[in-house]
Amino acid sequence: MKIAVLGATGLVGKHLLQILEEREFPCSNMVLVASHRSRGDTIRVAGRDYGVIDLEERWYEGVDLAFSVVESGIARQLIPEIRGQIPLIIDNSSAFRMESDVPLVVPQVNPRAALGHRGLIANPNCSTIQLVTAVNPIHGLSPVRRMIVATYQASSGAGKEFMESFLLDSMNDARDGYDPLSDRPGSLSFNVIPLISDVLEDGFCTEEEKLMLETPKIMDDESIRVSATTVRVPVINTHSEAVYLETDEKLDLSSVEKALMSAPGIIYVGDSQNPPMPRGVSGTDNVFVGRLRKDRFCDRGIHLWIVADNLRKGAGLNAVEIAELFVTDVDSPVTPL
Amino acid sequence: MKIAVLGATGLVGKHLLQILEEREFPCSNMVLVASHRSRGDTIRVAGRDYGVIDLEERWYEGVDLAFSVVESGIARQLIPEIRGQIPLIIDNSSAFRMESDVPLVVPQVNPRAALGHRGLIANPNCSTIQLVTAVNPIHGLSPVRRMIVATYQASSGAGKEFMESFLLDSMNDARDGYDPLSDRPGSLSFNVIPLISDVLEDGFCTEEEKLMLETPKIMDDESIRVSATTVRVPVINTHSEAVYLETDEKLDLSSVEKALMSAPGIIYVGDSQNPPMPRGVSGTDNVFVGRLRKDRFCDRGIHLWIVADNLRKGAGLNAVEIAELFVTDVDSPVTPL
Repeated sequence: MKIAVLGATGLVGKHLLQILEEREFPCSNMVLVASHRSRGDTIRVAGRDYGVIDLEERWYEGVDLAFSVVESGIARQLIPEIRGQIPLIIDNSSAFRMESDVPLVVPQVNPRAALGHRGLIANPNCSTIQLVTAVNPIHGLSPVRRMIVATYQASSGAGKEFMESFLLDSMNDARDGYDPLSDRPGSLSFNVIPLISDVLEDGFCTEEEKLMLETPKIMDDESIRVSATTVRVPVINTHSEAVYLETDEKLDLSSVEKALMSAPGIIYVGDSQNPPMPRGVSGTDNVFVGRLRKDRFCDRGIHLWIVADNLRKGAGLNAVEIAELFVTDVDSPVTPL
Repeated sequence: MKIAVLGATGLVGKHLLQILEEREFPCSNMVLVASHRSRGDTIRVAGRDYGVIDLEERWYEGVDLAFSVVESGIARQLIPEIRGQIPLIIDNSSAFRMESDVPLVVPQVNPRAALGHRGLIANPNCSTIQLVTAVNPIHGLSPVRRMIVATYQASSGAGKEFMESFLLDSMNDARDGYDPLSDRPGSLSFNVIPLISDVLEDGFCTEEEKLMLETPKIMDDESIRVSATTVRVPVINTHSEAVYLETDEKLDLSSVEKALMSAPGIIYVGDSQNPPMPRGVSGTDNVFVGRLRKDRFCDRGIHLWIVADNLRKGAGLNAVEIAELFVTDVDSPVTPL
């Protein structure tokens, strides 16, 4: 199989290549594509060196599967041009996620949705992936009707440049002493930024809208009402989420625990003294769920805390897991490529 | 007036002394008290040096007003011994907050509650103070029935030692490169800790219970149902909160904005592109409210983002403002000491 990775030099691209290598994804040849800024770069994958090819070039001949991890603006232009010329494109951007003919897939939640693809499958937003992975087993016990989500999102979700400037600011603040009235009022260093991406007309931001719109699509239940506040925190990598949800019927916690423990892709942390945290979860592949509590006022209300590596499960790994639906015949509902 | 400060050498104590000086709180003499570890220390307040007195000594003779900022365990022992021997004690700890004969006061919310004191007034928890200050003006428009709160709490709320070790870890991580699998899995440096204080039987922690129990007491409405998830974030000082609330009746945002803009102690930030953040709020005296949004599904639902300096408004300043109710006759419903 000939695989292309578009945006191979970015933060998600780097992780995606590493994950393909780790999981020994079947691949006879690889094309690494990026913007002309990376022209001339060489990247080593699975012991072989690949020169980076310019996005503008004709790179897609003979490609069986393309992972696109370029940003939405570029994806919106590029993908319509190449769609149909490659059997399958898995796109990590938000550009096509809500289109009705594009499946939005988390393999642990809705693998069958991938079946109906017409050359393009969208990878959900990082914060949505970990949310639906954790909530879906509860939804299976009794339909989830309402979610109030507050996120604690790491710098890596904003890309390499943002992350590097955050680390530089943190180094300076830690060394020189932090000054809350510094000339960097908007820096993430020792700060919390309660706004991710653009503000929409009703005051929600696009990152919040992604959680609110993608969740019902993936869980295939338009009646799930999700409201979110998305917040960037001074963490290098790995997102966390505080979630309150209400199910249709009253559930007892032991059945919720059991469902979480037997669900794919989840590590349930029952030890309430040692809940999952970015340190410890970063670099791993599962969605960690802890701090499970029954609400004190609503007997259909449950609180939980969800942590996952946003570059792995929240991006690169989920994309590779989507592709694996097509290359393995074990338990796979879809036909191979 | 002779004032005592118990716990004068701690983080809150230091800020309290600074605030008394800044606000020219009327004071003819001062007694600074701390544990024997600080014996021999000298602290300069308003141009005068005070030797630190051991808590074990008889320091309270002639004292008109004592601020106690020692931790709950010590307060629980100490305050019953001195209560009645000093006209008024304002206690920052959680030890007596929920006792029926102890007013729990935020001067911008329930100043009249201070009237009925029997020698002891409790200062609420830092995260509660900023929550009730921001929510009370909305409660005045239509009763608040439900709140789902997720906090983003700074290191300073955990005391001087915790804050210093967090800063040291941050410095090392920033300099040597962060290692998510380091030997400090529980460090706050580049991490998020979703648990503050002890875990209770139903899985909520005591910090969450403080928000859930103190809020109805201060707002004098036992029907307000607050559920919370309290989280420590790698911020040096200043707490943030993501709040979803439901009022009895449908409110339009412009009336909520107007109420927030005219309420005491609040800076309403209407610019949705520049919401309040710890950097910029730290060191100031007001509660900052931003990101006001109407929920997309519940027409009685409102989202807001609340930021305040937890050492000032969340502790020292609120305590001094309680005391000011008794020393000023301007707009004060209570009689002077």
